Amino acid sequence: MSFHYATRLHEAIKAKKTPALVGLDPRLNQLPPDVLAHARELHDDPVAVAASAFEEFCVRLIDVVAPLVPAVKPQAAFFEEWGPDGCLALARVIRYARTKGLIVIFDGKRGDIGTTAEAYARAYLAGADPQAAPWQADALTVNPYLGRDTLEPFVKVAAERGAGIYVLVKTSNPGSASFQDKITEDKTLFRHVAQVVEELALETNESGYGSIGAVVGATYPRELVELRAAMPHVPLLIPGYGSQGGAAADVAPAFDANGLGAVVNNSRGINFAFKASPYDEQYGAKQWEAAAEAATKKMIADLAAGTAAGKLL
Amino acid sequence: MSFHYATRLHEAIKAKKTPALVGLDPRLNQLPPDVLAHARELHDDPVAVAASAFEEFCVRLIDVVAPLVPAVKPQAAFFEEWGPDGCLALARVIRYARTKGLIVIFDGKRGDIGTTAEAYARAYLAGADPQAAPWQADALTVNPYLGRDTLEPFVKVAAERGAGIYVLVKTSNPGSASFQDKITEDKTLFRHVAQVVEELALETNESGYGSIGAVVGATYPRELVELRAAMPHVPLLIPGYGSQGGAAADVAPAFDANGLGAVVNNSRGINFAFKASPYDEQYGAKQWEAAAEAATKKMIADLAAGTAAGKLL
Repeated sequence: MSFHYATRLHEAIKAKKTPALVGLDPRLNQLPPDVLAHARELHDDPVAVAASAFEEFCVRLIDVVAPLVPAVKPQAAFFEEWGPDGCLALARVIRYARTKGLIVIFDGKRGDIGTTAEAYARAYLAGADPQAAPWQADALTVNPYLGRDTLEPFVKVAAERGAGIYVLVKTSNPGSASFQDKITEDKTLFRHVAQVVEELALETNESGYGSIGAVVGATYPRELVELRAAMPHVPLLIPGYGSQGGAAADVAPAFDANGLGAVVNNSRGINFAFKASPYDEQYGAKQWEAAAEAATKKMIADLAAGTAAGKLL
Repeated sequence: MSFHYATRLHEAIKAKKTPALVGLDPRLNQLPPDVLAHARELHDDPVAVAASAFEEFCVRLIDVVAPLVPAVKPQAAFFEEWGPDGCLALARVIRYARTKGLIVIFDGKRGDIGTTAEAYARAYLAGADPQAAPWQADALTVNPYLGRDTLEPFVKVAAERGAGIYVLVKTSNPGSASFQDKITEDKTLFRHVAQVVEELALETNESGYGSIGAVVGATYPRELVELRAAMPHVPLLIPGYGSQGGAAADVAPAFDANGLGAVVNNSRGINFAFKASPYDEQYGAKQWEAAAEAATKKMIADLAAGTAAGKLL
C-alpha cells in the first residue's frame, strides 16, 4: 500500500471503481427502531443509549458500504453532541472503518493557531498508519479563516504521516456567499483560499495530486468548474450531492479525464434511505441496511453514468 | 443569578473585580513533575497517564485561579490530542470549573452548516444551567468562514440557554492577515464579519451587551480600536496578551468606561509560569501553583493599572 494520501485514496477509488463517499451522520431521532431497541436493552442512561445506538448504527452501515465505496466521512458534531460517550463511540467507529479497509475523512472542520493547530493535526491525522494518532483518521476537514500560517502545521503532520486535509474553500450552504464570495482586491475570497490550497497541494504533490485537498459544494456548480481549473493538483471533497440538491451533472466537472481527483459525499440520502422514497416503500425501517445498500448502489451508478467516474468501471 | 450570558459574565467580572481570563492549555511535555508522577503511579497506559495528568493539572490550577478571576477558557485541541480519554478529562475539568463558580468559555472554534451547526451548539452551549449540555460550557468560540447562516443556529441555542458565543473576527496569529485582512468591496473581510456579529449582538442585547461576542487579538491594537467602535454591543475575548506579546496598553481600548465589555486571556503565562522568569527562580516546579497564583495576580494588577478595568476595584 502507498503512503501518500492522494495516492492511497486513488488506489481505493480504483479498487472500488467509484468516487462515492458515504457520510456517517447518526441522529438519534432518525435511527432505525431496532438499533434504538438494542441500545435501550443494553443501557438505562440516555447518553449511554445514544452513544451505543450510534456505534451500532455506524458499524452496521460500514458493513453495508465497505464492499462498495472507498471512503467514509464521520461528522464529528453528531457524536460530540453526546459528550465524551459520543466521542468514544466516534473513535470506535473510525477504528472499525479502518479495519474494513476504508479511507476515513474526519469531518471536524478544525482550525487554530500555531502549536494549537499542531495539536489538532497530531490528534486526528493518523494517515497511513492508524496507530499514529488516537482518532486514526486518514484525513481531516480544516477551516482556513485563521490564515495561511495556521494551515502549515496540518500540512507538516500530513506529510509526515501520509495523511490528507481538506480545506474549506466554497461550502455548500445557502449562506456561503456571505463571506466566501466577497470580492477581495481582484477576486473572491474563496479564490484567494483556493490559490493557497493549490500552492500547498503542489508542495505535497505525488503523481498529479497533493495531500492538501479542498471542500467545494456541489450546490455551486459554476464555482466548481472555476475551482477545478484553479486547483488542478487538489483532491476535492464535494458535499451537497443528494439531499442538498446537487446532481451528477453538477459534480461532473470535479473529475479529471480518468475519473479521479474528487470524492462526492452523500450522508442523509444513504444513512436514512429507509425513510425516503422509493426505499421507504420498498424496504422500510426493518430492512434499513438493504435500503442503505440500494441507495449507495444508485449513487454509484448515477456518478458512473453522469461523470468521468464511469471510466473507473 | 442572571440568565443572559453577557449579564452573567459582567456580574462575575464585577465580583472578581477583573476581566482576566485564564486559559487551560495542558501540554504533556510542560507539566510539573509532581503532576506527571501522580499520573504515572495511577496508570500504565501512556494515554491514560496524559489524560489523568491533564485532569489533575487543570483541577489544581482551577483551585488556584477560581478565587481570583471570573472565567477560564479550556483549549479543546490539547485534550482532543489524547483521544476519547482526553475528551473525558476535558468534560470533567469543565464540570469542576463550574462547580467552583467560574464562567467556562470552551475554545473549540467550531463551525458547520445547518443542522450540523445546531448539533455543535447543543453539544457545547449549556449556558445558565450546566446540565443543559453535555460539555457544560457557558460559551463557545465559533469560526464564521462558512457564512452568516451558519452562525444562526448558535445564536438560537445561545438565546434559549443563556449561553454565549465568540465569533472569530481578527485572530492573534502572525498570518491572520492572509484572509481576514483582504479588502472586500469597501472594507476588510474582518470588518464584514464584525458587522454581522454586531447585528447578532444587538438582536440578543441585554443592558448594553449581546450574548454574541467576538475574538479580537491583542497583537493587533489598531484593529482592536477600530473593532471596539464598530461592535459596541459585542463582548470581546482578547487573546494574545502575555506570551504572544500583547500588553495592557494594547488591550485598553477593548473596555468601556466601566471596565466592562471584554475579557483578556492568558494561557501559557499562567499555566507554565513556573518555567518563566521571574517565577522560575522564585518558586520553581515544586511550587508551580504559587507561581501560577503570582502570575495571575500580576496580570490582574497590570490590567487594573493600564486599562479601565481599574474602575472595577
